[in-house]
Amino acid sequence: MKNSDLDKVAGNGLINRRHLLQLGLAGLGSGVTNSVLAAEDSLQLQIPQWSKQPGPGSSAYGSRSSHSEYMQRAAGAPNPLYPGGGASRSPLQHLQGTITPNSLHFERHHAGIPDIDPAGHQLVINGLVKQPLVFNYEDLLKYPMVSKIYFLECSGNSGSLLGPNAADATAQGIHGLVSCAEWTGILLSTLLDEAGVEDDARWLAAVGADAASMGRSIPLNKAMDDVMIALYQNGEPVRPEQGYPMRLFVPGWEGNVSVKWLTQLKLTREPSQFRDETSKYTDTLPDRSSLQFTFPMGSKSLITSPSGQMQLDRQGLYQISGIAWSGGGSIRRVEVSADGGQSWADAAIESNRSDKALVRFSIPWQWSGGSAILQSRATDSEDNVQPTRESVLSAQGRMSFYHNNGIQSWAVNGNGEVRNTYA
Amino acid sequence: MKNSDLDKVAGNGLINRRHLLQLGLAGLGSGVTNSVLAAEDSLQLQIPQWSKQPGPGSSAYGSRSSHSEYMQRAAGAPNPLYPGGGASRSPLQHLQGTITPNSLHFERHHAGIPDIDPAGHQLVINGLVKQPLVFNYEDLLKYPMVSKIYFLECSGNSGSLLGPNAADATAQGIHGLVSCAEWTGILLSTLLDEAGVEDDARWLAAVGADAASMGRSIPLNKAMDDVMIALYQNGEPVRPEQGYPMRLFVPGWEGNVSVKWLTQLKLTREPSQFRDETSKYTDTLPDRSSLQFTFPMGSKSLITSPSGQMQLDRQGLYQISGIAWSGGGSIRRVEVSADGGQSWADAAIESNRSDKALVRFSIPWQWSGGSAILQSRATDSEDNVQPTRESVLSAQGRMSFYHNNGIQSWAVNGNGEVRNTYA
Repeated sequence: MKNSDLDKVAGNGLINRRHLLQLGLAGLGSGVTNSVLAAEDSLQLQIPQWSKQPGPGSSAYGSRSSHSEYMQRAAGAPNPLYPGGGASRSPLQHLQGTITPNSLHFERHHAGIPDIDPAGHQLVINGLVKQPLVFNYEDLLKYPMVSKIYFLECSGNSGSLLGPNAADATAQGIHGLVSCAEWTGILLSTLLDEAGVEDDARWLAAVGADAASMGRSIPLNKAMDDVMIALYQNGEPVRPEQGYPMRLFVPGWEGNVSVKWLTQLKLTREPSQFRDETSKYTDTLPDRSSLQFTFPMGSKSLITSPSGQMQLDRQGLYQISGIAWSGGGSIRRVEVSADGGQSWADAAIESNRSDKALVRFSIPWQWSGGSAILQSRATDSEDNVQPTRESVLSAQGRMSFYHNNGIQSWAVNGNGEVRNTYA
Repeated sequence: MKNSDLDKVAGNGLINRRHLLQLGLAGLGSGVTNSVLAAEDSLQLQIPQWSKQPGPGSSAYGSRSSHSEYMQRAAGAPNPLYPGGGASRSPLQHLQGTITPNSLHFERHHAGIPDIDPAGHQLVINGLVKQPLVFNYEDLLKYPMVSKIYFLECSGNSGSLLGPNAADATAQGIHGLVSCAEWTGILLSTLLDEAGVEDDARWLAAVGADAASMGRSIPLNKAMDDVMIALYQNGEPVRPEQGYPMRLFVPGWEGNVSVKWLTQLKLTREPSQFRDETSKYTDTLPDRSSLQFTFPMGSKSLITSPSGQMQLDRQGLYQISGIAWSGGGSIRRVEVSADGGQSWADAAIESNRSDKALVRFSIPWQWSGGSAILQSRATDSEDNVQPTRESVLSAQGRMSFYHNNGIQSWAVNGNGEVRNTYA
């Protein structure tokens, strides 16, 4: 089949899925010769060692294959002035599907990971409530729970792309502060209803038990909507680095408001202006004013393969694959461009799909050895379209790096090298 | 509030969810005294040690809390005549939500876990195809993939309940051979289309690379429908005990047909009658005939809390919580009874819901100290209703223990002890 016969859906090699078969995936599945089949039928094939003797049996708590250990979170260098502060990023270019295994979920700490004994931990609800309440861990386990698959994204994710130069980095290095899990916990409204919210309460102050006393202010209407006290993550108790024994989980909003190691919820009239919400998580606008409480994460997507620092090893058919998400709802559409945004084609969404959760998209692409700029663009159920990097910059200027949901561009050169670029 | 004022939805304590608040959850959330609040405001509260100093920072691959280590898979005693054979069961009574963490997903091995180097592993497609094909692991990673959340259940799960005596066991011990994960892989139809299926092919023989050469026959129409070659499980490569580097995944069907460590797929006219599908996974009926190829798993549910060997520690409000699933579609309805099936009430489904995946259900229950028999009953999107244990027994007799989807009964006695029972 000649390239000119392909049913192109957009420029520079994006093609219709029906070509998967005709292209034979560039011969990836090799034809088996008759001699191999004859050998197999007469059991003369070389039998691998692992097929010749029984292996070890079951285990109480399993581990991944030693061949999968290349998948690691990546942490930045520690800052001695800020002990325990920092983040580690999920290996997005190696993960598949939409669920992040707990061991690889991104982390962000303001004073490291407290080692909490749940028997000594309490959650206090006070402030503008009719009856202040205190809960221990065992109490909370008895409340009704809900389970929802939600993404979690740090507001600083992808912030480096707002800098002046396109760093040579991987998807993990640039965008690895987003993950997705099934979170199970108690709707906060259940506990607030029990305490009885006073009429003049408008905000909720959430404080963690870490040494940073990490605190965030959350509008009460969100708190009464879908916010939960998360006790489980992908079926098992929330991991220590995710807030064991309990964290707030605020669906669709910047990760830091989902306060970990949650120990206090105080109802207030005004936001509390905690250290970590004034020194951080505030955007300095072009007119030098400060924009606070920019909570929801935007409509966003990212091609994870091919992505930064990968190497295309042959001309032919590739599956462009990536993830998309939005704090504004579910993902309705993902488009992909191979020519830097001149033309776009709809990718297929090949995963379960729900509100404020990652989806996985893919589209076939025929690489003929030329240069290309790969981009993806998400649209959510509220018709929020992922903006270009330029429109993010023109809206928020260069003095802020939070909430960048601009389109990522990966440049492919004639040698098949894939690099981060500003298209 | 008096018990007589409760809005009862079924007998023996099942109540409407609106009572959560009025019952104050039996005072679980304790009122905070004024002296405690004053102490807090003046920072005289006892600050736990973990709040006083920064904790350790991030890690490349995280671990669960040491306080969560009670959650373990449980294996039966090994059989020296059958090296590597056996199973380990998921701790269903401790898990929450619907996703099973990979380390706690149930296992079933016929000759232990082969330690496969993916560079030395091949997948052959042959038999009644136009072009036999062989794939290595790297080849397969380049194919288009889909990601779906599916349960997996061993056909022998819950089989002990068909025995004459109700064993005193936990939910894990009786029902722990079911788990749920997001599986990502290549639709088998993609590869079979590439090989070209001959007109007279009707069955597919799938063979694993383990020392048992575990083999199963699968009808071609299912193979061309939703069966996949699974390469990832909850985002990371399939675990060794789940078939690393690749397994067949047959949604909704008994687990053993999802052949692990998959190395051959052969198209045939007739089923292959592999050792493990004649010596096992065949039902001996009351008339002594053998029923083979009873693939789909039925509509099923299970209360995980309260469940076997738990102890109610007080009278008052409890959240009955459990899981439901069906190989026939999605779960449409779960009903719960507290009086051994005399009366039923609809439970709420409190999780994401999709085809052939677990859902989590719950309903509040007021235990007044009397005896009770707790049951749940699932109905799927095809209107398949979970049968009673008696109807399962009358249909398949006592010479088979596969495919038991009968209703589980947990007896609560006046001391609050919860035990498996035949209601």
